[in-house]
Amino acid sequence: MIEIDPQRLIADLRKLSSFGAVGTGVDRPAFSQADIAARRWLEGRMREAGLEAEIDRYGNVYGRSPKASNTVLIGSHTDSVPKGGWLDGALGVIYGLEIARACLEHKSGAAVDVISFQDEEGRYLPLLGAKSFCGMLDENDPALAALGASRLPAAPARLDPARHRAYFEAHIEQGPKLEAAGKRIGVVTGIVGIRRVRITAHGQADHAGTTPMAMRKDAAAVLIRLANAILERFAALAAADTVWNIGIVEVHPGAANVVPARAAMTVEFRDMDAALLERMLGALRELVALAARGPVAVELQETARIEPAPMDAALGQMIAQASRSHGEEPVLLPSGAGHDAMIMTRVLPAAMLFIPSIGGRSHDIAEDTSEPDIILGCRVLASAVEAISRT
Amino acid sequence: MIEIDPQRLIADLRKLSSFGAVGTGVDRPAFSQADIAARRWLEGRMREAGLEAEIDRYGNVYGRSPKASNTVLIGSHTDSVPKGGWLDGALGVIYGLEIARACLEHKSGAAVDVISFQDEEGRYLPLLGAKSFCGMLDENDPALAALGASRLPAAPARLDPARHRAYFEAHIEQGPKLEAAGKRIGVVTGIVGIRRVRITAHGQADHAGTTPMAMRKDAAAVLIRLANAILERFAALAAADTVWNIGIVEVHPGAANVVPARAAMTVEFRDMDAALLERMLGALRELVALAARGPVAVELQETARIEPAPMDAALGQMIAQASRSHGEEPVLLPSGAGHDAMIMTRVLPAAMLFIPSIGGRSHDIAEDTSEPDIILGCRVLASAVEAISRT
Repeated sequence: MIEIDPQRLIADLRKLSSFGAVGTGVDRPAFSQADIAARRWLEGRMREAGLEAEIDRYGNVYGRSPKASNTVLIGSHTDSVPKGGWLDGALGVIYGLEIARACLEHKSGAAVDVISFQDEEGRYLPLLGAKSFCGMLDENDPALAALGASRLPAAPARLDPARHRAYFEAHIEQGPKLEAAGKRIGVVTGIVGIRRVRITAHGQADHAGTTPMAMRKDAAAVLIRLANAILERFAALAAADTVWNIGIVEVHPGAANVVPARAAMTVEFRDMDAALLERMLGALRELVALAARGPVAVELQETARIEPAPMDAALGQMIAQASRSHGEEPVLLPSGAGHDAMIMTRVLPAAMLFIPSIGGRSHDIAEDTSEPDIILGCRVLASAVEAISRT
Repeated sequence: MIEIDPQRLIADLRKLSSFGAVGTGVDRPAFSQADIAARRWLEGRMREAGLEAEIDRYGNVYGRSPKASNTVLIGSHTDSVPKGGWLDGALGVIYGLEIARACLEHKSGAAVDVISFQDEEGRYLPLLGAKSFCGMLDENDPALAALGASRLPAAPARLDPARHRAYFEAHIEQGPKLEAAGKRIGVVTGIVGIRRVRITAHGQADHAGTTPMAMRKDAAAVLIRLANAILERFAALAAADTVWNIGIVEVHPGAANVVPARAAMTVEFRDMDAALLERMLGALRELVALAARGPVAVELQETARIEPAPMDAALGQMIAQASRSHGEEPVLLPSGAGHDAMIMTRVLPAAMLFIPSIGGRSHDIAEDTSEPDIILGCRVLASAVEAISRT
């Protein structure tokens, strides 16, 4: 049994949160001074644990077990959004560190590599580090030009598929489901796919007192009716875990007494089922076409498309079984947010474990999780690592 | 018959449009250099016409006929919105000047006073000049503090009710109805009342990927459904000339992947029938109360309330008859925009005449009216003045 040290786990998490500390959270965007300092500290901690550690060209901190094959890779990211939470990706990285350390201390048969990917949050390019690690990064991507001298002299670390049998990532839930269900461990079925569209109505500005209703080209009225129809239609089409959001609405010129000339909104929707996402997109296109039959032109632009990334079901079952062995019945749920595991699942069997977020808060300095939950999560992951290493 | 001089009329309008000229329009906000220069010029033109003219404390330019009783007052305003049209209020003022001048030249029995009110457009205080003229201005109104040294040493000009039997105001329609109907003269039944409310929904920001739909407090979704219901309800309640507008919509924080924490809109509606406006306001309050039953708080704030201002029907009939005498069947219509006549109708029998706006445009440098329409409007108004002076 891999015996983690709960005090050391918490102490390392607290220490990591001192880099870029802001209130109870951290401000540690990728390549910021605080981020690089945190990565240097992490590299040192990995070495102290007995891992061969280095920071690669893009800031990925990669610590390898002395055992060169049949290892489990555990990781996540230590960069944060501006004024983010102290756990977020840091949790999964320190879980990896603690489990790798415990394996080496206790001469466990299991071998664990640890990685902190760079820029998961997308200051420059979302999932930059994971993409580079998997050889999916175009080093000429214009988004990387802004990096400039932030690149390090080292070569990019690369996945060696012969070395690893699985990728595990632990993360705070970033939502309220576990807390609401009174559960402490979530097993992630997959990371949802995303469709995002921008819809713009082009009308004509007119005096809102003197222009008869029948002669108006009111962009806002058309957009409001369309948005309402989309909300109704999506509610009818949705599965249990489908989510959708109209998060941006803009009306121009924006005066009480001027008929709006232009109105725009973004509609975003997420689900694990790509076919459902396509049905929703099709319904949305139909509604836009209907709205565009009037005197106001309406255009739809697809601005983001991310396919669902299912996790490995067998690995998920190992996490679930490990959770039960610690007396905790787990919840199976999709992840509504993106994670490095989205990339890793393309090259390795991958699984994710969630622990509760207090009040569902995340990407905010108010983000937190109770210490018992943090410790339980690490124990469950260690047991899952042990289980897979025995097979 | 009062014979106006069409060339002189057009020349004076063109000359006036040279003050603050910007493209084909004017930029002549109240108390701007261009506005004051235009008012000085107008004062001079009134004197040349044989009127006793002066500029009062607030910039009202008041030209009085040598005949001290039973006169008709003709006016409007020469201030403009920023980058406004060349006609707008200037039209009605120069109509007054031309008709007063023609009366004096031809020793007509009719006597005409002329006034250009200040700040109809509300740079400092809407209808400032007309309110002052009618003794309805609170000189301690905080809005006037910003005026500072712009006040002139002269006393405020005041209406002498014994002097006038009627107030006439001509204006461009600022809407498309006359043009759409192929008509050249509008007789205004009254100036519509206005209700304006601001509705704010207070929800909670959440991650739009990880927060289940049932646990959201989505301010935008509530506002969209409410706005849609208001548009439907208003369409059902409306009379033929009722207008309504949702001109401002704001959603915060305004990110595609964040559930909106706050959403707000303004709803404005106008009609000649105060009882209908109250029914609409009541319906709106009901819909807001329904929307507020969910987890998102919704508040309604009434931000503007202007009562309908009916014009004098007998005077309107005189304009209509004058129009027919010039071979033009007039259209009776409400004014959806405010005018100095809103104030004047409280103290004198008042009537308004509209001429067409090309494309319905106004408050824009693109605003225009054909010269034949401008000239016809002045002739009709002159005939109406003559008719009332004979009674």
